Amino acid sequence: MTERNGKVAIIMGSHSDWETMKEACLILDHFAVAYHKEIISAHRSPELMFQFAKDAEKEGYSLIIAGAGGAAHLPGMTASLTTLPVLGVPIQSKALSGLDSLLSIVQMPKGVPVGTLAIGTSGAANAGLLAVRILSLQNPDLTHKLKQYAIQQREEALAKNSLLQ
Amino acid sequence: MTERNGKVAIIMGSHSDWETMKEACLILDHFAVAYHKEIISAHRSPELMFQFAKDAEKEGYSLIIAGAGGAAHLPGMTASLTTLPVLGVPIQSKALSGLDSLLSIVQMPKGVPVGTLAIGTSGAANAGLLAVRILSLQNPDLTHKLKQYAIQQREEALAKNSLLQ
Amino acid sequence: MTERNGKVAIIMGSHSDWETMKEACLILDHFAVAYHKEIISAHRSPELMFQFAKDAEKEGYSLIIAGAGGAAHLPGMTASLTTLPVLGVPIQSKALSGLDSLLSIVQMPKGVPVGTLAIGTSGAANAGLLAVRILSLQNPDLTHKLKQYAIQQREEALAKNSLLQ
Amino acid sequence: MTERNGKVAIIMGSHSDWETMKEACLILDHFAVAYHKEIISAHRSPELMFQFAKDAEKEGYSLIIAGAGGAAHLPGMTASLTTLPVLGVPIQSKALSGLDSLLSIVQMPKGVPVGTLAIGTSGAANAGLLAVRILSLQNPDLTHKLKQYAIQQREEALAKNSLLQ
Amino acid sequence: MTERNGKVAIIMGSHSDWETMKEACLILDHFAVAYHKEIISAHRSPELMFQFAKDAEKEGYSLIIAGAGGAAHLPGMTASLTTLPVLGVPIQSKALSGLDSLLSIVQMPKGVPVGTLAIGTSGAANAGLLAVRILSLQNPDLTHKLKQYAIQQREEALAKNSLLQ
Amino acid sequence: MTERNGKVAIIMGSHSDWETMKEACLILDHFAVAYHKEIISAHRSPELMFQFAKDAEKEGYSLIIAGAGGAAHLPGMTASLTTLPVLGVPIQSKALSGLDSLLSIVQMPKGVPVGTLAIGTSGAANAGLLAVRILSLQNPDLTHKLKQYAIQQREEALAKNSLLQ
Amino acid sequence: MTERNGKVAIIMGSHSDWETMKEACLILDHFAVAYHKEIISAHRSPELMFQFAKDAEKEGYSLIIAGAGGAAHLPGMTASLTTLPVLGVPIQSKALSGLDSLLSIVQMPKGVPVGTLAIGTSGAANAGLLAVRILSLQNPDLTHKLKQYAIQQREEALAKNSLLQ
Amino acid sequence: MTERNGKVAIIMGSHSDWETMKEACLILDHFAVAYHKEIISAHRSPELMFQFAKDAEKEGYSLIIAGAGGAAHLPGMTASLTTLPVLGVPIQSKALSGLDSLLSIVQMPKGVPVGTLAIGTSGAANAGLLAVRILSLQNPDLTHKLKQYAIQQREEALAKNSLLQ
Repeated sequence: MTERNGKVAIIMGSHSDWETMKEACLILDHFAVAYHKEIISAHRSPELMFQFAKDAEKEGYSLIIAGAGGAAHLPGMTASLTTLPVLGVPIQSKALSGLDSLLSIVQMPKGVPVGTLAIGTSGAANAGLLAVRILSLQNPDLTHKLKQYAIQQREEALAKNSLLQ
Repeated sequence: MTERNGKVAIIMGSHSDWETMKEACLILDHFAVAYHKEIISAHRSPELMFQFAKDAEKEGYSLIIAGAGGAAHLPGMTASLTTLPVLGVPIQSKALSGLDSLLSIVQMPKGVPVGTLAIGTSGAANAGLLAVRILSLQNPDLTHKLKQYAIQQREEALAKNSLLQ
Repeated sequence: MTERNGKVAIIMGSHSDWETMKEACLILDHFAVAYHKEIISAHRSPELMFQFAKDAEKEGYSLIIAGAGGAAHLPGMTASLTTLPVLGVPIQSKALSGLDSLLSIVQMPKGVPVGTLAIGTSGAANAGLLAVRILSLQNPDLTHKLKQYAIQQREEALAKNSLLQ
Repeated sequence: MTERNGKVAIIMGSHSDWETMKEACLILDHFAVAYHKEIISAHRSPELMFQFAKDAEKEGYSLIIAGAGGAAHLPGMTASLTTLPVLGVPIQSKALSGLDSLLSIVQMPKGVPVGTLAIGTSGAANAGLLAVRILSLQNPDLTHKLKQYAIQQREEALAKNSLLQ
Repeated sequence: MTERNGKVAIIMGSHSDWETMKEACLILDHFAVAYHKEIISAHRSPELMFQFAKDAEKEGYSLIIAGAGGAAHLPGMTASLTTLPVLGVPIQSKALSGLDSLLSIVQMPKGVPVGTLAIGTSGAANAGLLAVRILSLQNPDLTHKLKQYAIQQREEALAKNSLLQ
Repeated sequence: MTERNGKVAIIMGSHSDWETMKEACLILDHFAVAYHKEIISAHRSPELMFQFAKDAEKEGYSLIIAGAGGAAHLPGMTASLTTLPVLGVPIQSKALSGLDSLLSIVQMPKGVPVGTLAIGTSGAANAGLLAVRILSLQNPDLTHKLKQYAIQQREEALAKNSLLQ
Repeated sequence: MTERNGKVAIIMGSHSDWETMKEACLILDHFAVAYHKEIISAHRSPELMFQFAKDAEKEGYSLIIAGAGGAAHLPGMTASLTTLPVLGVPIQSKALSGLDSLLSIVQMPKGVPVGTLAIGTSGAANAGLLAVRILSLQNPDLTHKLKQYAIQQREEALAKNSLLQ
Repeated sequence: MTERNGKVAIIMGSHSDWETMKEACLILDHFAVAYHKEIISAHRSPELMFQFAKDAEKEGYSLIIAGAGGAAHLPGMTASLTTLPVLGVPIQSKALSGLDSLLSIVQMPKGVPVGTLAIGTSGAANAGLLAVRILSLQNPDLTHKLKQYAIQQREEALAKNSLLQ
């Protein structure tokens, strides 16, 4: 289990989701958490998704971050095929601005949870941060870094405030 | 191929969807089209869904009607695993009245189509009727029955009008 | 009936819909499925629409793809005047981003089905693909091509993934 | 033309719409405006709708009130087939509470206007009142009655206020 | 009454609405219907609005077209102060794309009707056309022109279709 | 001005709004703030509304709470006719659950503010509380009572928590 | 209390909100009302927010204007920590255009009121104006200025109208 | 840290949320995961919330499940005051069916993540399940139980299917 704790899988439905999902990677980089990123389409490569989700635990992943847009099935289907925690990022879609993505991800039926974050880049970054919070339960060093991150955020807000005055 | 044409698979995500989906069955009964009905949850029995969808063609089905509610992944995932036509029925959900179901089914990305019908019982009945229209392309008898059905609908509307006067 | 199977009618409410609807044509071109495209406005040329829909079967069409935006009546009205399968494409409208188009097309009452696809270009392409799936029921060659198309999609997704790594 | 001015056609998509549309009749009764009511389904009896709309002017109608729900095409299609003023009443639908009906009626493209009223019974009553306002342009007696109606409304509001105190 | 028939008042809540509302003027110009246009803010010049609406009938107007955006009160308040027919045009607002404007105009309570058109320029043009349809009840020349306009629209649609082929 | 501070006007569009608006009265009763309640319909008694709003300041009111539903114009129109603070309460409407009321009240253009509270009874009670907060700026006794009210709320929450354990 | 009346605190969740919130400042400048502006993030500097809100009364503020976007918690949390009146400004968010901000601010439970203004810059300006209206209850000079402001608005509307003619 | 892993805090904004949140408890009971439940209102007992969130880590909680409705600030505020993972459950609200709750919880800005579940009881149960998945990263026994739970779900779905046949 040691191995598994600390590696995150970041999957996304299409190449165009990368612009959003890289925010999750930047956060994991910041916290020095190892991750693997992969384009896995629930609809265009369903077998791959199945195999990936079924194998995720034994591949040593601790949790999965899945981003998808429109009729976004990747996070929910992944969650149905593993018992690892799955976090979902609704990509901002063209016509409906991600409301479709959000509802497709968050409104899961009883039995298969997806922890859903905000639409777009904020959500992707926060998926990274929630992953770190989860991993920190086994890793006091991450807890320490999260507290520093919170302090840094507060200081940046204060600096912005000084700028405003 | 003869066998396949004329048998419809009606699948639904949970037992509570039956109240809605039986409307599709009633239509197929009316047109004497053979069908198989089954509860297959994309989330609670994903392997079963995979197997069902992968085998649907060789099981002799011509098309698949899939009803699901909330984060409704069954129609889209089924469509990604077969080349048979898939019709989706958004079940009216508790909190969001089926708007979540509708968007989760209809907003599929380029490459994997789901022909989506209206939310709830009207949509289920119409999924049955669209199935009959599709099957009628190979079956002049069904075309004939569809024309009679249209006449009957018109006459019922006229009868209702007489009642109103 | 031989003639009818294999020809698709693509109709749209206005010239500005062409930018969207040509995606359906590109798909049919890819699958070498014959089609006829026409601007038929439910509101500005209703008699033409009536005549077209009433004659569609005897003109040898197998199915009709209809795109329209805003108060989008073309798909539903066409479906009420023929027993051929009708697929609807909601055009992305200016003010409401196609939510009006989607609801106007998909929320048909019991008796007259329209198989509705996603808002905008994805929906247009998928209308083409669903048409091919429907026609493939009588045409094993199309089934074969659809399977190749699915493989190609998967490979493109994999190639995009390699690019990402 | 004399004949035409003063007779209103009230049409509705199905028998279940009557509960709503009778509010329009009650208003016309109150103002002693002649009307004809009829169930005409855009989808189940399209030819009848076509004929009705094409003939409305020579049948002596001054204007048409059309109520419909869901993918509500009756008002817009009628408006495309006549040059008489058409008023639309969105029926409160089951799943989406009439938002679908409203958008299907009001979002007409340039060229074919439908004067749309509120969802449900208020809208039906107001369609009757707008019809009376329109007819009053040629009928000073109706103008007089409308002013009395306004006074009566004000007095009822005042009476309700007395009750509250 | 002769005087009154044939003059339309076009009012709008702010100068920025002119870009939209001029579409109504272009239609009235096309049909040679006289009109008066004025910026009257329900919120910034309420007394002016009151006076305008109260006097509209004796100023000889036949009907009023009112455009407003956001919390759009101009059409409904005007309708409450006159017995002339009032048509409302929801201006496309910045944040909510005119959904707020639409609901603020169309959802009037029983007793005070506003015939509401589509959001934005299509709605403004259609308000002009509905005004012409209403005025045509007393003016056979306008009926004739409306029929020509319909023919012209159909021909333009056909011409666009030729272009497409 | 002494007189004015401390008296609140509670107005509502129709008698059916009372069920909601009485919550504001209960709050003002609790804080022993004087108020006057009145049914004033923006649409059925516009002159009364005008007169009321124009006279509100000299009648000695400090602020106005206005509740209305659907195309809710009462709060915004009142605010345009006085310089007193106006608080708006969106009544829960039948078809759209108060979303129409909310947008009609809150989306006021620059220049005429309405401080809007939540849809329904919570909003009505909170309008009362916001009125008390505003009046407390001149009345230390009310500030004291507000602090007690906050303590009481906290204690009730704690008591409910004990119940839960 | 003298001191407190007349000073407004304008707080906002992030630096990017300044573009919107400066509209409130411009209004307060116009009315020569003193104010303090500060970036205080409910989420990134919660202790600061707590301290600020708890101290606001004794710091001599009369009321607080709080702008925030997305899951906008700043106005409501501030209101729960003070008995001063709190006005909320929903910032126009990227994906959902401020609908999320609006609902997060306005839908407060019974007990803790936030007087909410429109989404975006109009709302920010109106928050400033509502603050002035509230302060005017103790300051006849502000009442006088508000009346002049209303006259000025009317005159600007009239000037715009002249331009249009 | 041993202590902390395995205890969950379930907090909710009001007593009426219990009907929903008990579903989370039932899940944790099923998995024999220890939990503490408490009513903590972000708005009525903000200091308590602050204290609770600040102390949660040292109280030995591993993660926090927070349910709230309407302008639901409890999950996000809690997340801003701890580095533990926070899961949010949108309670189905009266007027807007939980859409307000959902957006208030999920649309958090970058920096403070809340893993959001579905509206209502499904979401509450899934918050429990996601908590178990997270805890299972350190507890192979829970992983084992989760796999049994998945099998049990599948079997129940199959049993329901047998019933249907």
